[in-house]
Parts: sequence; structure tokens; C-alpha cells
Amino acid sequence: MAEGSRSPLRSFVEVAPGSHFPIQNLPFGVFRRRGSPEPEPPRPAVAIGDFALDLAAVSDAGLFHGPLLSASPCFRQETLNMFLGMGRPAWKEARATLQKILSADEPVLRDNEALKKKCLVPMSDTEMLLPITVGDYTDFFCSVHHARNCGFIFRGPQTPVNPNWFQLPVGYHGRASSVIVSGTDIIRPKGQGHPTGDSRPYFGPSKKLDFELEMAAIVGPGNELGKPIDINDAEEHIFGLMIMNDWSARDIQAWETIPLGPFLGKSFSTTVSPWIVTMDALKPFTCEAPKQEPEPLPYLAEKNHVNYDIPLEVWIKPKEQSEPSMVAKSNFKHLYWTLTQQLAHHTVNGCNLRPGDMFATGTLSGPETESLGCLLELTWNGQKEISVGNSTRKFLEDGDEVILTACCKGEGYNVGFGTCTGKVLPALP
Amino acid sequence: MAEGSRSPLRSFVEVAPGSHFPIQNLPFGVFRRRGSPEPEPPRPAVAIGDFALDLAAVSDAGLFHGPLLSASPCFRQETLNMFLGMGRPAWKEARATLQKILSADEPVLRDNEALKKKCLVPMSDTEMLLPITVGDYTDFFCSVHHARNCGFIFRGPQTPVNPNWFQLPVGYHGRASSVIVSGTDIIRPKGQGHPTGDSRPYFGPSKKLDFELEMAAIVGPGNELGKPIDINDAEEHIFGLMIMNDWSARDIQAWETIPLGPFLGKSFSTTVSPWIVTMDALKPFTCEAPKQEPEPLPYLAEKNHVNYDIPLEVWIKPKEQSEPSMVAKSNFKHLYWTLTQQLAHHTVNGCNLRPGDMFATGTLSGPETESLGCLLELTWNGQKEISVGNSTRKFLEDGDEVILTACCKGEGYNVGFGTCTGKVLPALP
Ligand SMILES: [Ca+2]
Ligand SMILES: [Ca+2]
Ligand SMILES: [Mg+2]
Ligand SMILES: [Mg+2]
Repeated sequence: MAEGSRSPLRSFVEVAPGSHFPIQNLPFGVFRRRGSPEPEPPRPAVAIGDFALDLAAVSDAGLFHGPLLSASPCFRQETLNMFLGMGRPAWKEARATLQKILSADEPVLRDNEALKKKCLVPMSDTEMLLPITVGDYTDFFCSVHHARNCGFIFRGPQTPVNPNWFQLPVGYHGRASSVIVSGTDIIRPKGQGHPTGDSRPYFGPSKKLDFELEMAAIVGPGNELGKPIDINDAEEHIFGLMIMNDWSARDIQAWETIPLGPFLGKSFSTTVSPWIVTMDALKPFTCEAPKQEPEPLPYLAEKNHVNYDIPLEVWIKPKEQSEPSMVAKSNFKHLYWTLTQQLAHHTVNGCNLRPGDMFATGTLSGPETESLGCLLELTWNGQKEISVGNSTRKFLEDGDEVILTACCKGEGYNVGFGTCTGKVLPALP
Repeated sequence: MAEGSRSPLRSFVEVAPGSHFPIQNLPFGVFRRRGSPEPEPPRPAVAIGDFALDLAAVSDAGLFHGPLLSASPCFRQETLNMFLGMGRPAWKEARATLQKILSADEPVLRDNEALKKKCLVPMSDTEMLLPITVGDYTDFFCSVHHARNCGFIFRGPQTPVNPNWFQLPVGYHGRASSVIVSGTDIIRPKGQGHPTGDSRPYFGPSKKLDFELEMAAIVGPGNELGKPIDINDAEEHIFGLMIMNDWSARDIQAWETIPLGPFLGKSFSTTVSPWIVTMDALKPFTCEAPKQEPEPLPYLAEKNHVNYDIPLEVWIKPKEQSEPSMVAKSNFKHLYWTLTQQLAHHTVNGCNLRPGDMFATGTLSGPETESLGCLLELTWNGQKEISVGNSTRKFLEDGDEVILTACCKGEGYNVGFGTCTGKVLPALP
């Protein structure tokens, strides 16, 4: 067999082995050059190796030739929302153009030093920004392991999972204003916790600060109010995925949550990774979705019922330790209700989705002890400790940095998400 | 006593007795001229009698002289968000300028026919639009009568109100994308309802479509993430109030709500009135807020603990009847947790508010049988009927128009909100 016929796609940009960002990936983000004398406006990019490819510069150079993008201002915006709204044909055109101009065989960028300098910005010179304006953010609750553990912890062993859970993807509206990009510090929230005995409720810094290992899907075109999206069209509306940490203050959450659900226990910060990995890049990592029993109602029954095999890890770096330690290892594939089922359910009542809306999966716990996606589950609500390097934790302490990462292993390449990080600062006085 | 010293403020624009919109009110909205040959961009306005005063035109004519507004583009925007972000000093300056140029004694507009024609647009020639871009919409649950009735209906007579209710303003995140302006039709949502016995869950058009009589506060400047707003500064961040109908599908809501709260039972549509009545216009209608027992925690204890006396009405007009009938009569003053307490609570964990965010009060039920703010309470979840003209209702039927209205009665003038209306259309096939 000739070498050429099986050589994988390769870029002229050097990509270290093990990099999350080879030419097979090309996740989208928004960056600003660090330390330019005058602040530049943010601009869209894709990641390639250790570089951000500046899509405004690529656009200015006239390298987007295709019918949908050649005259579009979508890459001269400060967020990806316009591009998201253009839908899958534009996404495919962008990916094809970018894979071509970055490939080892294509001279247009490779052999133009001046243009290369303009377009390829070393990641060390970039500040990554929140790449989308989030109109609405919905948090689902779609890992059965997480649902079972939370039910057990909060409601006891009788009916850990409420009967509706197996009939519909349970979700709630999250807070959009406090969605922030990886690297932003988290100030420990203050709030009320359960009273003990006849006393007043606790008020002060949360004593049960937690992370939640999640992924967030980013919505493309969306729908008009009143017009549901059919389950078999749903994938046309999902652009890609980010890693997400749904920081949670368990004491605030437990006290406030009856009867209307989570509110201030969650709304103080929600961190997302800067890069959105496209569903097109994730296609090779498609896998079978968990069998659903009972069978879903017809509006949730889909022809293409798939998940994605995305290994996930959680690391914690305490302030006084020089290295982070892994505390959990899970996988996106544990999701019981697929992204497309979530989207069809979300719109079945006519609710409108807009480009840039975020759907989070809920905590992606798996079945094993080490695959639990939050400290609530790992320490069984603080009843036991886990070890973190040479220390232990029940909940997060000031100075702890939480690092989530996700990376799909392909044949000879990765499709990775980078990291989603945040460090806990003490509560304000 | 000389007549002059007590004559109330009066406009040269004719205002019919009983009008909601005298010069004492001047609520803000956004309109577009109806039937102009080319579609004009939306523009901010205040209501005066039967006219919308075009603030872009007033601004173009150089009539905003004050230091904050004379050079500001805030009234050349398509929403009020920029103006909201400028805060109370700008709001006061706008009100003072507008009351002056509209007053009977002031010739600048009164005696300039050409300018008057440009600035004063008959309401019959306007299409009112959603006046704000809603970043986040929060729905509180602050009428104790509503909380008690809902608790009784859904959880039984043992603990109708959960103990946290008297310690904090319970609320949840609502859906921002489906906030719509008065007059927009409501398509009956489809969704899942409780299974009966061993059957599958119900799926189809909601059989328990309801309204909720609420008011929504509109947020001004807001705060940075991580920096709570002190309760005694909270009023600087509240621009004004609208009437709101939080349409609810009770069957969908009941089945989905455990454990994360309302989702698709609410997110299909939320209607607001087009005019935002400012807190400055509402000041004369200040009244004592309900005594709070137990005393609120220090972060919720406020120096100026007040409510507003705003009479509210709900009317229903069935398709086959020519006139609407009143079905409920309540008052904003039943709110247990004040708007400022809601705002202080919302930010105490560091959650950031942005200009244009909406806080809804929750259903404003009062203590009397006729002051219940939704059909769930009025018909005790469909267990009895109420009469609507010569017909009866348990829940809303297709063709029903729901009309909410609110109007404060001053001495010789009203400060009214107009109406908040929506007609129920049948579910899509
Ligand atoms: Ca979550
Ligand atoms: Ca409500
Ligand atoms: Mg969160
Ligand atoms: Mg609603």
C-alpha cells in the first residue's frame, strides 16, 4: 500500500506529539493579543499546535474563498455568535478552508512569511476570552450515576432518582451573566446555609464549595419562538463542545433549593474552556449511547442515537503544592440523554434557542468510585476525605486550583479541549 | 391659598381624565412607526396621554441640555439598555427635562408645530417593541399567599411553605429568550405530563395552561462579578417596573419540576407590558411593606423597607365574548420580600447583574378569594370553575385573551402601566 494513501492529514505548523490541537481538531475561540501597546479588539481564531490562527487576518487576506464565507463579516466580530448563526454549511466551509490552508502541502500560507506572521499568533502572546455571548445557559442533569448519587445524598435511599428522570432530560435555567472563561479566579461566595436546630440560618462564606465536571454544547442557528426543532434535525443546531466547571456551593444550594431549584448555590461563577471543539472534529469519536429503558417517547426517539467517547479528568492543585493531583477520571459517554435529545426536549414547548446558547450536560459522573464528577459525590457530602497529593479534601479550600481537561485519542493524533481552570480566592471580608 | 401654588403639574399635550399616562408618569418604552414605507429603526419613547414622545427626535432637536444626556447617544439606541446602564442621575435628568418640555408652561415644544409633529407620535401609529435586551431574567416567589396556596396544592397541608421561605426571597432563573412584548400571541405548548397509573407520561398540548399575574423590575447599572450590592444601595439599581404574565403550563410544570424546578412549563413565553414605569414616578405610591417575622438576616435588613400600592387586575376575554371579564384583583403591596431585598439577596453570592436584567416578583396573590393571581389558585388546580362572563374556566382555552393591568391612583391623576395582553392560539398540529 502506497504511503500517500494512508498518511494522515498534517500541517506545516509544527504540532508536538500529544498536543490537543492538531490539524484534525481546529477548535474555535476568541483571543486578544497580550501586551500590544493599544488594546486590540478581540478576534476569532482556531487553535493549531501552540498557535492561534487569527481568523480576522485570514479573512482580510482573502483566504476564505467559499460561497458562504468569502464576503461574510463573521470573523471580524468580537464573538463567534454571527458565525454560529450561519449554521452547518458555513461551519463545514470554514473547516475545509482552514484544513486546506494549514496543510503541509499547501503553500498559500506556508510559504508567505509576512502573512504567516500576521495570522499565526503564539498562544503565549494571547489572552483567551469568552468566545460567545451567552443568551441563555441551560444546565441538564443527564448522568444517571450523578442523579442517583445526589438523590441518595439529599433525599435518601428510597427513591434516589425521581420517576420523571427516565422519561425526559431534566434540566433548569442557569445564570448567563456569570459564565466566565478559564483562568478567571473564583471568589468564594457568601450565602445562607441550613439552620442548625432552632438557630437562625448560617450566613457567611460557603463551607462546601465544590466543582462539577461538565461539558457544554454550543447552539447554532436555533429556532423561532413557537416552532420546535425535530429530534432528527437537532444535530444541525449543535456547533461544538466546551469543558465546563459548574462551581457549586453545596450548603447554599441545599438550603435554597426547595421548591424552585438551584439559584445562588450556582450563579456565582460557571467556567468554560476557551476553545470550542466542533462536532465535526468529534465525529471520529462517536460511540454508542447508553440503551434507554423505558424507550423514549416518540419526540425523543432519534434515528442517530450516539454519544462521544471523550475521556475527562479532574485535577486539583492546592496552593502549597507545586503539582496538581488527579482526583477523578470520567467520560462524556456516560451521558444518558444525548445532546440531540436535550435540544429536542428543550424546544418541544416552543422555547426558542439563539446562536450562542449553552447546554451543559450536568455532572458527568461514571459508574466507578474514581469516575465521580464532583466532591459532593467523591466525599459523599463531606462524610469522608479524598487525598489530593500529600493533603486531603472534603470540599475546596482557598487557594485550590481546579483543572478540568478532556482529550479524545485518535489514531496518531488527539482531539483535545485544552483545560478549564479556576482558582478559589477567599471570600470578601 | 393661591391657585398656582397647588395646581398639579400639567402638560400641553391633552391627557384624558383616567389616562394611565399623564405628565406625572412618563414611562419609557421602545416603538417603531407603523406603516412607514421603509421600516424605521426602533426608538426609545415616553408615553404622554395618547402619544409616544420620540426620544431620538427630542435628542436630535437638542432638547436634552443636562450634563449627562446632552452628548449621550443613549436615545439613539434600539433598546433602553444603554440608558439603564447610566444609572439614577441620568434617569433623574431625563425625567426633569421631559417633564419640563412637556409642561403646559413651556413653549419650546408646545409652540413649535414642526417639532411637535416630529416628536409626538399618536399611539395608534406605533408598534410597541420589547424595550430591553434581557440578559437574564429571574423569577422570584415573594407573595406568601401564593407560596402557601401552591404548597398546599402541590405538597399538601402539612408544610405548605418551606422553612427557607421566611429567611430568603426564593427565586429561580427564568428563560430570557422567550420574554416577549404585550400583544404577541401565545401558542399553546406541548409537553409531557404525569403518567396515570402504569401508562407512559402524557404527551401533547398542555391541558392546564395558566397565567401568572406578576410585575417585573428592570435593573439599572448592576455590579461586577464577585461584588455584592449592599441592601441600602439596592434602590440605585432598580429603574422601574413592568406588568408581567408568566404563562405557565401546570401539567408540564408539575411533572418536570422535581428536583431542579420549573423549566419547560414556563419557558414557552413570558409577556411584559411595553412601558416601564419608573421608580421615580411610583414614589408617591410608596407604602409600608409587610412586617417580616422572623427578622431578616443583617444582609437583608434595610433602612427604607417599603412597598408600592399598585392595584392590579386580571381580565379574560374568551374568543366568543365581545367583552373581557375581570377574574382577579390584587395589589403589588402584598409582596413580602421587597425589590431591594430581592436585589441584595441575588448579588450576595457575587452574582453580577447587568443593565436590562429582569426580576419578576412571582405571582402577586393577595389574601382574599378574588385576589388570587393565577387559575391554579383561583380554581384550586382545576377542582372548581370560575365564571368568565357567561362562560366558565378551569384553565385557559384556545382563543382566550388574558389582559393584565395596573394603575396607581394619585390625587387627580393616575400612574398606570397600560396593559399586558396575550391571546392563546391552539397548539401546532
Ligand atoms: Ca450542574
Ligand atoms: Ca412565576
Ligand atoms: Mg454555575
Ligand atoms: Mg414564563
